[in-house]
Amino acid sequence: MNNRAAGVPSPVMQYLEDLHAQIHRMQAGKVADYIPELARADPEWFGIAIVTVDGHIYQVGDSREPFTIQSVSKPFVYGIALEDCGLEEVMARVGVEPSGDAFNSISLDPVTGRPLNPMINAGAIATAGLVKGKNVAHRMARVLESFARYLDHPLAMDESVYQSERDTGHRNRAICHMLRNFGMLPDPPEEALDLYFRQCSIAVNCRDLAMMAATLANNGVNPITAVRALKSENVERLLSIMTTCGTYDYAGNWIYDVGLPAKSGVGGGILAVLPGQMGIGVFSPRLDAIGNSVRGLETCRRLSKDFKLHMFNTALTQPSVIRNSTDGSRSRSTRLRDPQAASLLESASAAIRIYELTGDLGFVTTEVIIATMLKEADSAGFFLLDMKRVFTVDAASVNLFAQLCRNLHKAGKFLFFTHTDDKFAFARDLWLRVQSAGMLDPFQFPDNDHALEWCENRLLGQLRDGQVRERRTAGAPGYAGPERRGVAGSAGMARQPLLRGLDPAEIAFLLGLMQPREFGVAETIMRQHDAGDEIFFIERGEVSVGLTTGRKRNRLAVLTSGMVFGELALVERNVRRTADVYAKTAVRCRVLPASLLEAQTGALADAVRHKLLRNVNLLLLEHMRRDHLQIRMLV
Amino acid sequence: MNNRAAGVPSPVMQYLEDLHAQIHRMQAGKVADYIPELARADPEWFGIAIVTVDGHIYQVGDSREPFTIQSVSKPFVYGIALEDCGLEEVMARVGVEPSGDAFNSISLDPVTGRPLNPMINAGAIATAGLVKGKNVAHRMARVLESFARYLDHPLAMDESVYQSERDTGHRNRAICHMLRNFGMLPDPPEEALDLYFRQCSIAVNCRDLAMMAATLANNGVNPITAVRALKSENVERLLSIMTTCGTYDYAGNWIYDVGLPAKSGVGGGILAVLPGQMGIGVFSPRLDAIGNSVRGLETCRRLSKDFKLHMFNTALTQPSVIRNSTDGSRSRSTRLRDPQAASLLESASAAIRIYELTGDLGFVTTEVIIATMLKEADSAGFFLLDMKRVFTVDAASVNLFAQLCRNLHKAGKFLFFTHTDDKFAFARDLWLRVQSAGMLDPFQFPDNDHALEWCENRLLGQLRDGQVRERRTAGAPGYAGPERRGVAGSAGMARQPLLRGLDPAEIAFLLGLMQPREFGVAETIMRQHDAGDEIFFIERGEVSVGLTTGRKRNRLAVLTSGMVFGELALVERNVRRTADVYAKTAVRCRVLPASLLEAQTGALADAVRHKLLRNVNLLLLEHMRRDHLQIRMLV
Repeated sequence: MNNRAAGVPSPVMQYLEDLHAQIHRMQAGKVADYIPELARADPEWFGIAIVTVDGHIYQVGDSREPFTIQSVSKPFVYGIALEDCGLEEVMARVGVEPSGDAFNSISLDPVTGRPLNPMINAGAIATAGLVKGKNVAHRMARVLESFARYLDHPLAMDESVYQSERDTGHRNRAICHMLRNFGMLPDPPEEALDLYFRQCSIAVNCRDLAMMAATLANNGVNPITAVRALKSENVERLLSIMTTCGTYDYAGNWIYDVGLPAKSGVGGGILAVLPGQMGIGVFSPRLDAIGNSVRGLETCRRLSKDFKLHMFNTALTQPSVIRNSTDGSRSRSTRLRDPQAASLLESASAAIRIYELTGDLGFVTTEVIIATMLKEADSAGFFLLDMKRVFTVDAASVNLFAQLCRNLHKAGKFLFFTHTDDKFAFARDLWLRVQSAGMLDPFQFPDNDHALEWCENRLLGQLRDGQVRERRTAGAPGYAGPERRGVAGSAGMARQPLLRGLDPAEIAFLLGLMQPREFGVAETIMRQHDAGDEIFFIERGEVSVGLTTGRKRNRLAVLTSGMVFGELALVERNVRRTADVYAKTAVRCRVLPASLLEAQTGALADAVRHKLLRNVNLLLLEHMRRDHLQIRMLV
Repeated sequence: MNNRAAGVPSPVMQYLEDLHAQIHRMQAGKVADYIPELARADPEWFGIAIVTVDGHIYQVGDSREPFTIQSVSKPFVYGIALEDCGLEEVMARVGVEPSGDAFNSISLDPVTGRPLNPMINAGAIATAGLVKGKNVAHRMARVLESFARYLDHPLAMDESVYQSERDTGHRNRAICHMLRNFGMLPDPPEEALDLYFRQCSIAVNCRDLAMMAATLANNGVNPITAVRALKSENVERLLSIMTTCGTYDYAGNWIYDVGLPAKSGVGGGILAVLPGQMGIGVFSPRLDAIGNSVRGLETCRRLSKDFKLHMFNTALTQPSVIRNSTDGSRSRSTRLRDPQAASLLESASAAIRIYELTGDLGFVTTEVIIATMLKEADSAGFFLLDMKRVFTVDAASVNLFAQLCRNLHKAGKFLFFTHTDDKFAFARDLWLRVQSAGMLDPFQFPDNDHALEWCENRLLGQLRDGQVRERRTAGAPGYAGPERRGVAGSAGMARQPLLRGLDPAEIAFLLGLMQPREFGVAETIMRQHDAGDEIFFIERGEVSVGLTTGRKRNRLAVLTSGMVFGELALVERNVRRTADVYAKTAVRCRVLPASLLEAQTGALADAVRHKLLRNVNLLLLEHMRRDHLQIRMLV
């Protein structure tokens, strides 16, 4: 990691260096001396490391000085036991309740003989007995392999510390035999004890501790190597144990004061986790009476206070799951409607509600969305949930959405999800749940545009049915037929906005310059960026206008008979086309070459050209206004 | 709350009803009977309530059935003690360490006599002794008043339960005297005991518990009434205590399994908090051997599993603090530049980096921003942090930003914050820290546009200095002077893009139709939505073009001499102006009335009108392209 780029120091590093200098002055506590090897540690050693879930590493002081991991190994070996044996078997051998006693107390349940938790020595030895393997060497190899997944390098044992622990660990040997007495260890019980001595003797540095912590913070995935070290559900369990029992009989104070799941060891190491955000590793051998590193504790306390890292700091604002919401009157599909349909939709389309969602959908966020929708359900008939910026949707939320879909459907309302194509599991699970309820209407669309078009069509159908009923009731002539699709043929030319103000002679003149052309279904009519000279008047059929950016096709409009495209060719010679156009159905057009019009002479040609140019101007202006564009300079 | 709108049932309610029906079948456990009043509870009672921090309330079953709060009162009275006496005095009387023993164990520190934590009876009685008041009645009134702030209604004591507790609480009376013996209670010790009996006898229902929990989830502010019930720092403390000691000697299992800070009472109530999100209240009188409601525990467990509410569930994606990032070559200030300056900026403005931030800035998010910037510091010289969508910035982050500001400045680079005007504290604190370091360059701007303009000006200055040096070195003629500000006067008219292609006779014709006009500093030249007929050619000075939406002024462009505005009047008669324009400096213009031009006859007038119209068209097109607008239909 680049803590210093282009000569600019990182203020995070400066903060840590400053903190290190301040805390380095603390001289309280003493180096563990219950085995001679530990007593050799330099009491002045002091390192701090932070690893974020984004993979940034910050380290100051003696962050690369090796020391033995000691009790910090306990939660990680507990993780191996959970993955080797499963929850039930582990819970039968070791509990999860804080003991209120010191780390080396025997603390077995008086009835079952089960150690209260895996962070006291008794529980850790019972846990070591759960690690699978042919023999101690194989088990230890598996422990080292597992620990290495939290890191970017392999680990090894400090042989002399191990020997020293093994030769002097009488109390632990007593615990071991007591455990065997209660049937909490397999035979031979010495194997579990030996593995326990070995796991405690693994050499690490405080950068390693920070990385192990960051892997837990990152849901079990190593943020540097992207390797999964632990299953997600076991991450919750390790962090829970560290919260209630991680710092011996100081755990209650630790959570109260520092508020981070943590584990300390008599080697002087402390590891703390800010779930979802980062891992902290501190190393300093001077211990307090309870067995926690004095400077380590103070470092975590300061970091927590200075940066408000307490896990129950809820002062932060929750980002809103609804990024934006609007309705169909402000966001219309790109399908161009004839004036009658457009005016019907003008007033009615507010019944379409669009919610742009963001982030992860779990219970809490889904509840917010549902409560918001239901509050508006009186005046709304169509709900469109835009999932484009949604990362994940958990299974329970899918159930809630499927249920809501059915509830709305029963009330004659509709719920749609858009942009679900890259959320395969969500789309499938939703489909299974909704479909199984016998709902046949669509509820997923690739984008908002297609969903809006569906809603608008439905809304127009309802409105016209309503009008037909009204007219029939009033004895008025019946409804004339399906939606009028623009104005076809030369007779309708004068109504074309581009030809507004042209008299019949001028239109006849223009028609004389045009040629008919036909396109088959799906045929490309023009391509973005190509140079173009022709203006197309649609006589029959539908064309789709769109942009292709990357692999994504973005539909801009659907044009039907009576409409025009390509008219920018009137403004600029060999204009570059701004979009792709293809035939949605069989299409017949009349085509006007701009260069041919330009070449005409005489007063009639001049008048036609001038009128066309003014009309293009007005159309451009109209589009800009309709899209609420800010027109720079052209005030 | 509207759990059912427009005939559409809420799927959240349906889920809760279903869960209630399933768990209602559980018959294990028995009603507390250590006092006769409690034994009268109907074992079938079962209610569930959820209150979100958004203030939605969901409740099913016997959610309005009253019961006595019992031990659930303990954390809230501990909160009163913290606010009455401060942390130090409270910590002297009661610890925060789990006892590992049952709720009614005496559990005093053998040396100090301090109860281990405030959730066991001994600790709760010591805590009651810390509530201030003239006498028990006054203290109890203060407790009721404090509890009511978590709710939307007042509470009262169940007199018969209180009498029963008082008459039979021999063990608690023993604890009380033991506490007095160690000096942990003021005289007379019976007062604290009496208050403890009263607080336990307060009648609540499970909707109340959910609302108290939701208030803790909402950082101490009641989500329904918006009243603050507890200081933010004390919320952290209450939640910590509930995490390590909230469910008697089951707390370790509870956090392991359910993963929510919680408190249970022998009345059958359980309250659980999902920090930042919601509160849960459950009531069912059948208790397990440890004293927790059997159905209550199962309800919390199911909610946690079904909706992944465990506080250490880190599977969710963290929303990115950097919403968007771009550089100055893709995002330009609205100041229009002459072609030379524009081309210089074309290549150089990538050195300006713009980061659009979102959410709250704490250590972790600030670290991400800083690491991202430093990674790009080699190629960037200007950093612009858009704070528009930032809600809060904590004090430690302000320090990091101020430090970064100074670090970048030393390296000859610049950091700017925009949209800080509604963040008074941030703006002031940053100013104090940066200014104190003697930095004189600006570092806060009202919007990105002004910041970008400053960066571009600086960049142009640097570039021209460089050119001057190069020319001097090469012996070329010196730099001509300050930035050329467009082309003033009639001589420059032909270079005006609007007049492109007009020959001298045509320009002379146009000039003949224009009139000079002058504006003073800050004078309004045109107003958005007004009808307009005139086109303005700037001869001297600068004008600002902007939109006023709500109370916010949004600058679109700064125009200088040689530039034109109002040209849409050429397209449409009495066009509505699209923006406001005012004089930034004293301004002199030539003004062309479009109607006057329209009224002219003859071939010269025709030619001029046609050319102007085509030029407006080209300009419109150019602007649309420059802004990367999707031009619908006009392909």
